[in-house]
Amino acid sequence: MITSLTNAKIKTIRRLLADRRFRERERAFVIESVRWLAELGQHNLTPEFVLYTDSWQRQPAHRTMLQQLNAPAYEIDEKLLQTISDTESSAGILAVVPMPSTPLPDQPNLLLILDRLADPGNLGTILRTAAAAGVEGVLLSPGCVDAYNPKVVRSSMGAHLRLPIRSCSWAEIAALTNGLTVYLADAAGDLHYTQTNWRAPCALIIGSEAEGAGPEARRLAAARVTIPMRAATESLNAAVSCGILLFEAARQRAAPPPITTPPAFHY
Amino acid sequence: MITSLTNAKIKTIRRLLADRRFRERERAFVIESVRWLAELGQHNLTPEFVLYTDSWQRQPAHRTMLQQLNAPAYEIDEKLLQTISDTESSAGILAVVPMPSTPLPDQPNLLLILDRLADPGNLGTILRTAAAAGVEGVLLSPGCVDAYNPKVVRSSMGAHLRLPIRSCSWAEIAALTNGLTVYLADAAGDLHYTQTNWRAPCALIIGSEAEGAGPEARRLAAARVTIPMRAATESLNAAVSCGILLFEAARQRAAPPPITTPPAFHY
Repeated sequence: MITSLTNAKIKTIRRLLADRRFRERERAFVIESVRWLAELGQHNLTPEFVLYTDSWQRQPAHRTMLQQLNAPAYEIDEKLLQTISDTESSAGILAVVPMPSTPLPDQPNLLLILDRLADPGNLGTILRTAAAAGVEGVLLSPGCVDAYNPKVVRSSMGAHLRLPIRSCSWAEIAALTNGLTVYLADAAGDLHYTQTNWRAPCALIIGSEAEGAGPEARRLAAARVTIPMRAATESLNAAVSCGILLFEAARQRAAPPPITTPPAFHY
Repeated sequence: MITSLTNAKIKTIRRLLADRRFRERERAFVIESVRWLAELGQHNLTPEFVLYTDSWQRQPAHRTMLQQLNAPAYEIDEKLLQTISDTESSAGILAVVPMPSTPLPDQPNLLLILDRLADPGNLGTILRTAAAAGVEGVLLSPGCVDAYNPKVVRSSMGAHLRLPIRSCSWAEIAALTNGLTVYLADAAGDLHYTQTNWRAPCALIIGSEAEGAGPEARRLAAARVTIPMRAATESLNAAVSCGILLFEAARQRAAPPPITTPPAFHY
């Protein structure tokens, strides 16, 4: 049983949790959720190793899961796991997992671009929303929080497994969105989101929570899309705006083409 | 200048930040945002008192704001303000403000009901979204986090000023929604949200993040509304779901009535 903070595996885990560059060098990250672990097999991902507590493995379903993971597994002292865990209360399991390398589609229909998104909880929620809405890839601009930051991983609810996520330069983003109509979400924009044509292949840019979109995003965008709001003083959280826009895209794509242009709504 | 933690005003502020019952007894709460303060006048709210730091009041615009607030104002030591502040980095201003008492409309068209919502950041984001979508009142069930919790106040971006918010028993919720069609947001629901009639006067229930809706919410609801998602394993954050549903209501209400039933979309 692992009981010491000086154990080499424990040191690796602590660095993977704390250090973005180390994660990128190792191409690995830490999962502490049973739900994520249960889904790894579907995506052909095998943990590098797994740590579990005695009380966790007492449940028969957990022992079955441990076998199915087919990875080296070690028992760890409960208090030590709680000490190194990034969660308030560890479930009793922790795995080091290689970063998924799901390819971007050659001819994508819907991409999401995040411009210097800084809050890990927001990024996780946006990845979760994007996966649910049918986005085919997420491009992170320079200055975004790391997608493998533990708080992002926790709030994404496994979206990393189902969605290609890439950190890109603006030149790469321009190349990857070649042939797509790029829309920028902008509270001061002039194109109503229900009048936007989300049926053709397109990409949506969501800007930084604090500063909105930067100059590169503005240059890339063909139009600035807005969600009409009740009062001039209102604004929406980045993840909520993203959800409203992506599900409007899903709604339009599922419906037959309109005969007439749908009307805008104003407050 | 106030410099001591034992000053009576400082003690009041600390209790208002920490103690829900004290807030309810005093019918007052703490605001630390310049943006909120700038909006108080429009809503006929006058702070009970204001504390400001010397460096904050050096900006002419801030001095004008201080005069317009028309409330007793006291200078406070910068370090003391940072010590009592609920924010990571205080703006240099703090006000004790009476809770707004905006009445609920007699015949509401759109109410939001939150069932045991526990996360303060989620509640603040939902209030902000509801105000932007044109919701006319928010009813909080027993077991919800307090709407005047400092984290809720911070993430709501001033929604408390524009939106009646009430803590209610389930009997009161039933009485207030009498005559409205009550929809429950439910990932396992059978009514697609784009096929739901949001035009008639209605109320939407959002359930607890961890446990979904409780038995009282299920009894009250006429139908369970669902957002179709890309894969069976997906789910959405409570605030994101709430935004998608409320803005679908806004979209339908702004558009002319449909000639035929819109088709559902499935993944």
